[in-house]
Amino acid sequence: MKKILVAGANGKIGKHLVTFIQKSDNMEVKAMIRDKEQASFFENLGAETAVVDLEESVDAIAKAAEDVDTVVFTAGSGGHTGKDKTIMVDLDGAVKTIEAAKAAGVKRFVLISSFDTTREAILKANDSFAPYVAAKHYADEWLKGSGLDYTIIHPGVLTNDEGTGQVNLAPQVERDEVPREDIARVILASLENDKTIGKAFQVVRGTTVIREAVDSI
Amino acid sequence: MKKILVAGANGKIGKHLVTFIQKSDNMEVKAMIRDKEQASFFENLGAETAVVDLEESVDAIAKAAEDVDTVVFTAGSGGHTGKDKTIMVDLDGAVKTIEAAKAAGVKRFVLISSFDTTREAILKANDSFAPYVAAKHYADEWLKGSGLDYTIIHPGVLTNDEGTGQVNLAPQVERDEVPREDIARVILASLENDKTIGKAFQVVRGTTVIREAVDSI
Repeated sequence: MKKILVAGANGKIGKHLVTFIQKSDNMEVKAMIRDKEQASFFENLGAETAVVDLEESVDAIAKAAEDVDTVVFTAGSGGHTGKDKTIMVDLDGAVKTIEAAKAAGVKRFVLISSFDTTREAILKANDSFAPYVAAKHYADEWLKGSGLDYTIIHPGVLTNDEGTGQVNLAPQVERDEVPREDIARVILASLENDKTIGKAFQVVRGTTVIREAVDSI
Repeated sequence: MKKILVAGANGKIGKHLVTFIQKSDNMEVKAMIRDKEQASFFENLGAETAVVDLEESVDAIAKAAEDVDTVVFTAGSGGHTGKDKTIMVDLDGAVKTIEAAKAAGVKRFVLISSFDTTREAILKANDSFAPYVAAKHYADEWLKGSGLDYTIIHPGVLTNDEGTGQVNLAPQVERDEVPREDIARVILASLENDKTIGKAFQVVRGTTVIREAVDSI
């Protein structure tokens, strides 16, 4: 039974993901949450929880990662919160979680980034969005240089629509919407497929069954 | 004659630094400024100028760095501007300038950081200051991993007092004030002393003559 630490478990993608993993046969979740009051959702799914704020130390996060096989980072300020949170959660929270995985001896790390985090995207973004793109860019770069078995998922414009189980997935695709539920399924499929190690890809809505789309990467 | 590209030349430390370098025998400045209207101060000192905004591309900065021997980065939002500028100037501006130096084949890079940019300092900082410390932390880390011949200067609490020509300088010193003019002299002495390559040190006011303090590092 593989145990997956989900940082950002209480987010919308996080909750879908925990639900899917808990239903799977060979994986279980440790949900990392900021506040004990968020625990009941996860306990009802039979998932373990660990209360750690991403603004705490690497050690605090590493302690939560001690007995897991994989870390998924799907926390994020969403680009609409204060710029303080952008750098403290999207960049520093991600990097601390990467360092915590290394400290805890966890090799596998899946990062949910934003759609386009290239240097060109930072330049093209408007003044209010650019800091968010930059924060995501540096988190991605840090993970790529970490030595971990990484997968970086770049979702399109996230919606709360019901998932279709199908996507368009490749290193570069045209920007489009994608349901959060389908992104959670892409994460699940990535956890089950080692072909995704060392890969970064964009995901939008589409017509390929998710497992096949992930396997074709 | 060594040519030094000073990014952030129009700042208070930058103006002192350009003045000192232009008075030196073996170095000259190319002042990187955001706005052509800032040029007269530097032209009056006989310094070349290059108009480049740090929010432009790596290529634009690299073009300014093409014919120089060293880059000094002393731009900064100061921790009191909007958090957008913190990540876009203190982190992304610094990293783009580092990448630009590499692209232009410049080996030597001097970065003016803030006093304490350790992970512990990020944790200890209050909510409004932490993003600034984090931005500086990542810029420092990026430079250390860049392969460039770097020097990272961590000044204490900056004042506009007249310089004394003397400082207290070591990898770790007790936090104290330091005149911007003396920091400019420390940069100058670092440019003249290859012992500072691969070093990071803190600087506050003190009683050691600057050249000796720098040479003892």
